[in-house]
Amino acid sequence: MTYGKPITLADAKKIVAAAQAEAIKNGWHMAIAIYDSGANLVLLEKMDNTQLGSIEICQQKALTSVKFRRATKAFEEAVEKGGMNLKILSMSNVIPVEGGELIVKNDEIIGAIGVSGALSAQDTQVAKAGLAAL
Amino acid sequence: MTYGKPITLADAKKIVAAAQAEAIKNGWHMAIAIYDSGANLVLLEKMDNTQLGSIEICQQKALTSVKFRRATKAFEEAVEKGGMNLKILSMSNVIPVEGGELIVKNDEIIGAIGVSGALSAQDTQVAKAGLAAL
Amino acid sequence: MTYGKPITLADAKKIVAAAQAEAIKNGWHMAIAIYDSGANLVLLEKMDNTQLGSIEICQQKALTSVKFRRATKAFEEAVEKGGMNLKILSMSNVIPVEGGELIVKNDEIIGAIGVSGALSAQDTQVAKAGLAAL
Amino acid sequence: MTYGKPITLADAKKIVAAAQAEAIKNGWHMAIAIYDSGANLVLLEKMDNTQLGSIEICQQKALTSVKFRRATKAFEEAVEKGGMNLKILSMSNVIPVEGGELIVKNDEIIGAIGVSGALSAQDTQVAKAGLAAL
Repeated sequence: MTYGKPITLADAKKIVAAAQAEAIKNGWHMAIAIYDSGANLVLLEKMDNTQLGSIEICQQKALTSVKFRRATKAFEEAVEKGGMNLKILSMSNVIPVEGGELIVKNDEIIGAIGVSGALSAQDTQVAKAGLAAL
Repeated sequence: MTYGKPITLADAKKIVAAAQAEAIKNGWHMAIAIYDSGANLVLLEKMDNTQLGSIEICQQKALTSVKFRRATKAFEEAVEKGGMNLKILSMSNVIPVEGGELIVKNDEIIGAIGVSGALSAQDTQVAKAGLAAL
Repeated sequence: MTYGKPITLADAKKIVAAAQAEAIKNGWHMAIAIYDSGANLVLLEKMDNTQLGSIEICQQKALTSVKFRRATKAFEEAVEKGGMNLKILSMSNVIPVEGGELIVKNDEIIGAIGVSGALSAQDTQVAKAGLAAL
Repeated sequence: MTYGKPITLADAKKIVAAAQAEAIKNGWHMAIAIYDSGANLVLLEKMDNTQLGSIEICQQKALTSVKFRRATKAFEEAVEKGGMNLKILSMSNVIPVEGGELIVKNDEIIGAIGVSGALSAQDTQVAKAGLAAL
């Protein structure tokens, strides 16, 4: 898949609003970041009472996703297999924790979303709820 | 002035919306960051076609402001006087460039706003338009 | 001026080849970097016997240029005026040294070139010789 | 094996051209870096539409190789064995991922190549195609 134009702030806001609605519905406190197709930060929102560590983690998830053009869950599953795949832990620009998803429009990557704050499967659930709004 | 509770995301959004309205009215493209009273990022929005360097600069302005409990313009004016004041340039967590302003509620600091993207006096104008919304 | 598509490797190579030809003609040893419109490195070439420090400096010049949408000479001239402008020295993502130039195509920024290795006016001369090839 | 003179830019270009030809033949998009025997960057080329994360990874592979005088595959195989070898993951200047290869001339190390962008065995294939050109 190719990189396309950078996501607009308007699209980023739509995605984050939908993601936050999902988080609120479940009583989760989360930090959510959107990076564009050039790996530059476009939008970050930290909900009240989110664990402070999530501010960095949500950015790392989105960056991993856009820089390697895949959901971070792919790296998480590779690490789970162990063995040779543990090499992934040494890649300083990869966080192998699910909750980072590509944002695709007209078959091109326009950015990525990263979510952190709850269990990582819940982070993915919130990220996907955000993507569904686009 | 003392540090109070951290700014809520709702208040941060109000401020950024008003700041952006001022930027749009003037045709400026800006990045705006809100940090809370614990010096943690709460909200960052980069308008479309903002110069990429502003993503970092707006964060540094807000951080300087909240960490030193003053508007960044105070540091800029000190640098302007020269002499001994040039020591400020060596402080790695100070950016002496106007556009960073404290956010105060009930006489307590709840956070700071940092704006970057236009001339620095225009950055301040946008930051103050944001503060007026609280 | 707006950010356009990222520069292609083919265009980057054309620019660097022309810049190097100018450097060779003058007997200068230089490092030359091209970043794209998303501030990502596309091409870097260090000529034999270039001072090692230039490897980083050429990258910083190109990054400053693309992130702030101007030639780095603009920052150099501002610093030269002194006074308040010395604040620029505190901006961690700005290097106010000439030799960084925007790469523009169809009125859009597609990247930036940074050159380091000789006197800074000579760095600019080489950068501009590169741009002329596009 | 001893460190020899630093690789010339001309030799680095020969290697990268051959490596890229192999990548193009296979339809792979890759970033390729050459470091010299002093662990300094000489040449970096990012092909169009390469995943952005590879810009850093190709540099880390070449650096690991030249700094430890071995192919990065040696570290990858060690990690695969597990146990005590997992200590490698803590070495901040080692990336145990194949695709980094030494460049040897007259029995001396003159530099290293790092390739990233496809599966890591494919990265090695491209690196070796580059070495064959010297």
